[in-house]
Amino acid sequence: MLNQERMERVLKAMDAQQMLICDPNAIFYLTGKWIFPGERFLGLLVRRGQEPVLYVNELFRFAEDLGVKKVYLKDTDEIASVLAQEVDVHEVLGVDKTLEARFLLPMLQMGIAEKFINGSLAVDHTRAVKDAAEIALMKQSSLINDQAMVQFKKLPHEGCTEKELADQTLAIYQSLGAEAFSFDPIVAFGRNAADPHHMPDNTVLKEGDAVLFDVGGKYQNYCSDMTRTFFYKKEPSAKQKEVYDLVRKANESAEEYVKPGMRLCDIDAKARDVIAQGGFGKDFTHRLGHFIGIQDHEYGDVSAAFADQCVPGNIFSIEPGIYNQEILGCRIEDLILVTENGHEVLNHYSHEIEVIE
Amino acid sequence: MLNQERMERVLKAMDAQQMLICDPNAIFYLTGKWIFPGERFLGLLVRRGQEPVLYVNELFRFAEDLGVKKVYLKDTDEIASVLAQEVDVHEVLGVDKTLEARFLLPMLQMGIAEKFINGSLAVDHTRAVKDAAEIALMKQSSLINDQAMVQFKKLPHEGCTEKELADQTLAIYQSLGAEAFSFDPIVAFGRNAADPHHMPDNTVLKEGDAVLFDVGGKYQNYCSDMTRTFFYKKEPSAKQKEVYDLVRKANESAEEYVKPGMRLCDIDAKARDVIAQGGFGKDFTHRLGHFIGIQDHEYGDVSAAFADQCVPGNIFSIEPGIYNQEILGCRIEDLILVTENGHEVLNHYSHEIEVIE
Repeated sequence: MLNQERMERVLKAMDAQQMLICDPNAIFYLTGKWIFPGERFLGLLVRRGQEPVLYVNELFRFAEDLGVKKVYLKDTDEIASVLAQEVDVHEVLGVDKTLEARFLLPMLQMGIAEKFINGSLAVDHTRAVKDAAEIALMKQSSLINDQAMVQFKKLPHEGCTEKELADQTLAIYQSLGAEAFSFDPIVAFGRNAADPHHMPDNTVLKEGDAVLFDVGGKYQNYCSDMTRTFFYKKEPSAKQKEVYDLVRKANESAEEYVKPGMRLCDIDAKARDVIAQGGFGKDFTHRLGHFIGIQDHEYGDVSAAFADQCVPGNIFSIEPGIYNQEILGCRIEDLILVTENGHEVLNHYSHEIEVIE
Repeated sequence: MLNQERMERVLKAMDAQQMLICDPNAIFYLTGKWIFPGERFLGLLVRRGQEPVLYVNELFRFAEDLGVKKVYLKDTDEIASVLAQEVDVHEVLGVDKTLEARFLLPMLQMGIAEKFINGSLAVDHTRAVKDAAEIALMKQSSLINDQAMVQFKKLPHEGCTEKELADQTLAIYQSLGAEAFSFDPIVAFGRNAADPHHMPDNTVLKEGDAVLFDVGGKYQNYCSDMTRTFFYKKEPSAKQKEVYDLVRKANESAEEYVKPGMRLCDIDAKARDVIAQGGFGKDFTHRLGHFIGIQDHEYGDVSAAFADQCVPGNIFSIEPGIYNQEILGCRIEDLILVTENGHEVLNHYSHEIEVIE
């Protein structure tokens, strides 16, 4: 059913009078209905002062009343012509950033609107500020992730591979009440932990390896995302401990700094400065964090490129890392919520160095 | 490494002198390299008489020489400006059908080409004709699917749910040498089998239920896709048998008809006529089949909308179904290869009525 409050916020944020939303995640966000159109067209036309129209292929016909007008499309329909019946040709049309060329080019050619602009920021900015219902689900999702990590750290054993461990994680999420992964889990042993984009492979665990889990599950459609780096059967060396402690300090300094009004780029800098001052600046190769919600990566980065101030309801990751092939690959990641007066870290799993057996 | 033969075929098929390919599947098809850019830009610019250029975010930097020029993008780069350095502003630019508005609109605004057209048919038509290496992989993939079905039909037991069975299928594929699903498996019991888009849920199996498996695995990146409908612990009724036999006859009549020069719409009609003559025309609600390869659904349908003649190397599904809530939901699907002189059905699992225990 159409969420009136979210819709109002989107309408208010729109630059244009009319917008065509196509992203299934955004349509779920607004209507509560998941429609995965595959290669077929899906669109929700929203307009100031008029009823929204949902365009959906007749294959995905459904009975519920979502509080929007429904237009069923046939495979043989020309999408641009059908849209032209509702879109105001004398007005700018905001289109979804994900609208594909195969649909957009015919609309342009047919000239169904005065001008076409990327209108997604209206939806993105709205989704970036979670409402109370979303915050409750995000908290529960991260609580499940905390509990899952307790079980994940018990999985490693002599001779096991990364893939073997990764394959066991979904069942653990499901046993804890999550319905799916937020993203494919990263399990990385030893030097593999020094590759931030490593995918689990047949690498075999050795004593003294770092064991990195970057994992998340979905709870009632809302994503969690957390990273911890453990040590297998052996205390880290002094040099490894130095790296770990720097990453931990970067994480905690950034988290501590989060409150309404702080700029995302400055939060990023907080963590980055700690690591740079420790002499490992070149080994922290990515943004500090990303926004998250229905999708594991939503619009908004905690990075030098984002000067927006954070506001209550924002939820993003804080995930500094040092990727040093010679010493250690290590990342410590939490999700954090911006509150009225400060912040609340949604993950509670310890940041302490932990040797697992 | 760039597959010269495939690239030549794409260049020959292009309407424009230059084309921007963005689909990771198409880029894998041409270069052998998987790059999943997430929300970041990925593009392979191909031009007649000039070296291809691969645009990829520096996050996905890689060492291999693919035989193409590489341009690494930063998150702060304006994609349209970077492309403008290589794209010929005086020529038409074919763009990928999947190119998103957030990238296409700035290109249009900046006017980096004379005109923009959807250029994907050049790639789609090329991919629709599998070469020898692809045919070998598609055959092996379907052989694995045949073996998997033998195991799947043994899974049902008193009190089990659709989800429970679906959850066991991935491990079976992997044990047989497939690396992943082609698509999320459909397992449907009883009346659920009469919904062609049913997703496995907590429905419990009952004696006398139809048990439909629509499943596929990936073998070395190539997809299989097969459907069989079994009966649990009880022979089908006379009416159910009539429906099953019609679907089977529709499947086999269509398969028998496949050879070079036959039109896809006529293959569809072959199956559809059988079902219509049997009095169940209104219960066969979808196209007869779809092309398949690296993706489970590729360009090309076996439907009334496609009048193209099939040619050697085409591989598509033949999947008639009757979805009748009162009598039976039933589908029988194979993959079929068009050969020089006729066809080869890639699935070998029997079409006979089978009662499972």
